[in-house]
Amino acid sequence: MINAYAAFESGGELRPYEYEPVELTAEEVDIQVEHCGICHSDLSMINNEWGASQYPLVPGHEVVGVITAVGDNVADITVGQRVGLGWHSDYCFSCGSCDDDDHNLCASAQGTIVGRHGGFADKVRVHYQSVVALPEGIAPASAGPLFCGGITVFNPLVQYDIKPGQHVAVIGIGGLGHLALQFLRAWGCEVTAFTSSDSKQAEALALGAHHTINSTDKQAVKQAARRFDLILSTVNVSLSWNSYVEALKPKGRLHFVGATLEPLNISAFGLISAQRSISGSPVGSPATIKQMLAFAAEHKIAPQIESFSFDRVNDAIQHLADGKARYRVVLHR
Amino acid sequence: MINAYAAFESGGELRPYEYEPVELTAEEVDIQVEHCGICHSDLSMINNEWGASQYPLVPGHEVVGVITAVGDNVADITVGQRVGLGWHSDYCFSCGSCDDDDHNLCASAQGTIVGRHGGFADKVRVHYQSVVALPEGIAPASAGPLFCGGITVFNPLVQYDIKPGQHVAVIGIGGLGHLALQFLRAWGCEVTAFTSSDSKQAEALALGAHHTINSTDKQAVKQAARRFDLILSTVNVSLSWNSYVEALKPKGRLHFVGATLEPLNISAFGLISAQRSISGSPVGSPATIKQMLAFAAEHKIAPQIESFSFDRVNDAIQHLADGKARYRVVLHR
Repeated sequence: MINAYAAFESGGELRPYEYEPVELTAEEVDIQVEHCGICHSDLSMINNEWGASQYPLVPGHEVVGVITAVGDNVADITVGQRVGLGWHSDYCFSCGSCDDDDHNLCASAQGTIVGRHGGFADKVRVHYQSVVALPEGIAPASAGPLFCGGITVFNPLVQYDIKPGQHVAVIGIGGLGHLALQFLRAWGCEVTAFTSSDSKQAEALALGAHHTINSTDKQAVKQAARRFDLILSTVNVSLSWNSYVEALKPKGRLHFVGATLEPLNISAFGLISAQRSISGSPVGSPATIKQMLAFAAEHKIAPQIESFSFDRVNDAIQHLADGKARYRVVLHR
Repeated sequence: MINAYAAFESGGELRPYEYEPVELTAEEVDIQVEHCGICHSDLSMINNEWGASQYPLVPGHEVVGVITAVGDNVADITVGQRVGLGWHSDYCFSCGSCDDDDHNLCASAQGTIVGRHGGFADKVRVHYQSVVALPEGIAPASAGPLFCGGITVFNPLVQYDIKPGQHVAVIGIGGLGHLALQFLRAWGCEVTAFTSSDSKQAEALALGAHHTINSTDKQAVKQAARRFDLILSTVNVSLSWNSYVEALKPKGRLHFVGATLEPLNISAFGLISAQRSISGSPVGSPATIKQMLAFAAEHKIAPQIESFSFDRVNDAIQHLADGKARYRVVLHR
């Protein structure tokens, strides 16, 4: 029996929920959950914002825990090992994306909390290739958010072969942005933080930014013309995107990891005149998660978290929903 | 004295115009114009659509001719050599883009017909590094359009490292698109033509497309989901761009070389879900023009042209403006 917390209807409070998992297959492992981050997408799923929620819904896809069982065909993962689990918990392993080690782009990839039960529980059962071992130097208590928020901002650096010395900006200094600043600084980039919050400017500098620009100051954004190789947007509000396109160098890229629901009203001329791109990406593949963890351990990069015990899960959710998290909320036993 | 044809006001008919060029500098060459293509951007400049026109305005930036004079510091280009000239006729040679051999992205690059007089003339005087020698196997009479229309669609294949076997689609089969289909077929790609014109479907197949899709058939576009590595849009009308984004494979790119004035209403989710990009580019650098000419010569790729003598320049312009060109109009002596 698995003891979990579930929402029983859209927007509902979480309540204790017990369920019997289906039998462990040869490729599955059990993780005894020690810590689980709360991500904005947990809120979106609880509230059925994407129309993909099934109730009872057990949220939680930033899991850190210990392996307690492994199926017969499981390789590399052993009982007693401490691992993490992110947004995906299974892949098809046969499509072009899986063949290319881009499992995160597999059209049949299974979301850990989409039609399955997630990590707000004492145990979660998933495909062994979706879990990644925690290396030495990564603190289990704060590692959870690396597996969704962290990999989401780290992955573009790998995908687009960002080089030390390049000029990179981050829009939005929150759960994702505060990790992006740390990664970029350690990656050797010249780092600028765009934030609408004056109070976050000093924090952004402390997290690794060399410069800050107020994202609501249109003149300041304009003055940054042709300055950045990459701008990473972590926000879910609409900004004057064409000003940010103009802030890109020739061949620069405005990359979205935060999704605004409103369409991006991009001028084709801004792209054409200087061979610029706009793009987006979801989380990363298990291989890139592994690379991120090694990099984070080497450079002592960690999520800044606020910790709540599992029995205060509803308080923790409310804290995040109120926009008060500095910067990421994690549940612990 | 240079004998040219000029527009004397926005939208005006072209009339004979004589002007005395400023003295030949050490880095300049004179080209005796033999052929000059007419591009849609000549029309845009005649009509001052971009607010950058100065009158008298001598259009023409798809020039083929023979070198008749070279400045003291000119290297590699000699009197008597047959060359071509495109959209740019000078660069700064000192910015990051010029340093990287991306002269076409130089913010100070000079347009051949922007504040200078172009190729609707018996002679044009330009920086020697903006001209490229015509190789054996390229017919001078039809080569002009390669220097603007041709390089505009060839350049993305180089910039984005498109591989033989990749699935590439072209939206719009006109001056640019008919060259794109030829290049892509010879490049070894699996080629699809999106066209709104039923009459052009057979022509698209003859030009190199393996498949055609009616671009106005929303259902057909939808059925192409996750099919293309690259979609090249050559049109200047607004289409349902999000359907074309969905027609991209993971990591695919929707690339604009034709510019719609209306904003591109792109959904961030379509980009994020499969790490897709949208982008744009102008013409190519002289180095890429040289590469294109060698490839065109090797694969017998040539613009399909309709030829008018220079004294019928206004008829030629009207033919293009009426949308009747199949596929590119070239003036000859």
